[in-house]
Amino acid sequence: MATFSRLVRFLARDGRTYYGDAILPRGISDISKARQARIITGDIFGKHDVTDQVADIRTLLAPLAPEDVRTVRCLGLNYAAHAKESNMPIPQYPVIFYKPATALTGPTDPIPIHPIAQQHSGLDYECEMVVVIGRRCADVPEARALDHVLGYAVGNDVSHRDWQLKLGGGQWSLGKGFDGWAPFGPGIVSPAAGKSGGGGGGSGGGAGGGIVDPQALAIRTRVNGLVVQESTTADMVFGVARTVAFLSRGTTLMPGDVIFTGTPQGVGMGRNPQVWLKDGDVVEVELEGVGTCTNKVEFSPLRDAKL
Amino acid sequence: MATFSRLVRFLARDGRTYYGDAILPRGISDISKARQARIITGDIFGKHDVTDQVADIRTLLAPLAPEDVRTVRCLGLNYAAHAKESNMPIPQYPVIFYKPATALTGPTDPIPIHPIAQQHSGLDYECEMVVVIGRRCADVPEARALDHVLGYAVGNDVSHRDWQLKLGGGQWSLGKGFDGWAPFGPGIVSPAAGKSGGGGGGSGGGAGGGIVDPQALAIRTRVNGLVVQESTTADMVFGVARTVAFLSRGTTLMPGDVIFTGTPQGVGMGRNPQVWLKDGDVVEVELEGVGTCTNKVEFSPLRDAKL
Repeated sequence: MATFSRLVRFLARDGRTYYGDAILPRGISDISKARQARIITGDIFGKHDVTDQVADIRTLLAPLAPEDVRTVRCLGLNYAAHAKESNMPIPQYPVIFYKPATALTGPTDPIPIHPIAQQHSGLDYECEMVVVIGRRCADVPEARALDHVLGYAVGNDVSHRDWQLKLGGGQWSLGKGFDGWAPFGPGIVSPAAGKSGGGGGGSGGGAGGGIVDPQALAIRTRVNGLVVQESTTADMVFGVARTVAFLSRGTTLMPGDVIFTGTPQGVGMGRNPQVWLKDGDVVEVELEGVGTCTNKVEFSPLRDAKL
Repeated sequence: MATFSRLVRFLARDGRTYYGDAILPRGISDISKARQARIITGDIFGKHDVTDQVADIRTLLAPLAPEDVRTVRCLGLNYAAHAKESNMPIPQYPVIFYKPATALTGPTDPIPIHPIAQQHSGLDYECEMVVVIGRRCADVPEARALDHVLGYAVGNDVSHRDWQLKLGGGQWSLGKGFDGWAPFGPGIVSPAAGKSGGGGGGSGGGAGGGIVDPQALAIRTRVNGLVVQESTTADMVFGVARTVAFLSRGTTLMPGDVIFTGTPQGVGMGRNPQVWLKDGDVVEVELEGVGTCTNKVEFSPLRDAKL
């Protein structure tokens, strides 16, 4: 589908924002290390070109522009050990909730904590593999589901346990949907393994890229440098193909739809004693073959706490 | 904010689709009875004109184009008597869940029932007042919340109780998010009460229009002509102003965001014995001052039931 290997969106040194195909030094696969990209023109979900024009990256942004995302679906309890630490049963069907697209931010953006999320305890991290849908589809058979995937990123399903579990009537969205509570990136790695970028080739693109098997990737979280979640996407209860097929049953998935596929064990809620994120904490979520998002927790001033 | 009184989107007799300001016969307030509208040009959320050009309405469509809707938020348990019939407590804070925008359809579209929603029992209706956000906002004080409302419609939060309550791990979205499960319309009535349409005026616009107080409107559902829900928005636990203010806390609401504000008592689940919608049933949801959506339940063929 796509002709790029590692889709990034970035603020360039020329002050403009572009989509691009990240250029990585040989032997490096973490897109957050990219300093240059080949500019992509056209519609990333349709006709587009990876040009020969190389731009210098100043800042990597959320890899999809706000206007290019329709719907953000998230799975809950999709790793058995995380379901256990949450005192929840392993689900029979995928457990689905949503975030608004306004929750999405980029791989180095701060995570703003609104005053109402400072009044109760329970601020937590969740590293997740993120799947981006590449083309419109519905009722996709599992065997063809991955054909509809534009690529893979890593994200943090930032969660406030009191608002999620206790104050929202049992519906999780309230404690997960605040602005900036879904950082993702640092880029989107195409499933088109081994294919080099179209539109002019050129060397320096690094080790090829592309994710052949989304169920064989190491995933982890570090808080202030300390590893707190460490797992593999092999442990997902519902893999990507099954998830896309299931979500598309009677439901049209659109290009730019984003799916957070659930988090493994090791969240702060599951620890003894429980550990919550604090103002200034730096959270890194990392997915093998994709890279790292590094986001700092920033408590907003309390002046509007009565809102 | 808006210069229209009753925003409609429609297929015209000339075969084209327009936004328009509905023209109603004197004494009639149900937008579904409109046969003509003044064509609106420009951005309905920004600079636009209600022109003097009158078009004949062939079919009223969902009053917002798919590309104009970002996020659909829904409230649960927002009428005390409905919380009681659902055996749930009256919520302390608004209970929020989401539907994908692909669930939205128009005031006369059929409600398609996918085979997986035919395999379990529990297909139900929920009449709801629908609020459309008119401009970007966050952390809106309750006293100014209604300034950000483009207008009001009526919708049906179609729900499948088994998928909603039993098979989705307790998260409701799964049983409420199928394609076409959020019919709404028949138009969007502006809160700008008494103001006549801009851009040229003209007579024949009927009884002025505009909803001054969103908490004083009769709301009801009929199934095959029989009234099954009958209430007033005065009974909402969280009114529109409180809801908009709450939803905007730490969360940016966007123009075109849609809010389903919860359903009153009388759903099929709450009856004794319980009553579920069947293939061919005709469901009408009606809101005073806005009008009626009339949607037929259509079971899809079972050939892809194994999906």
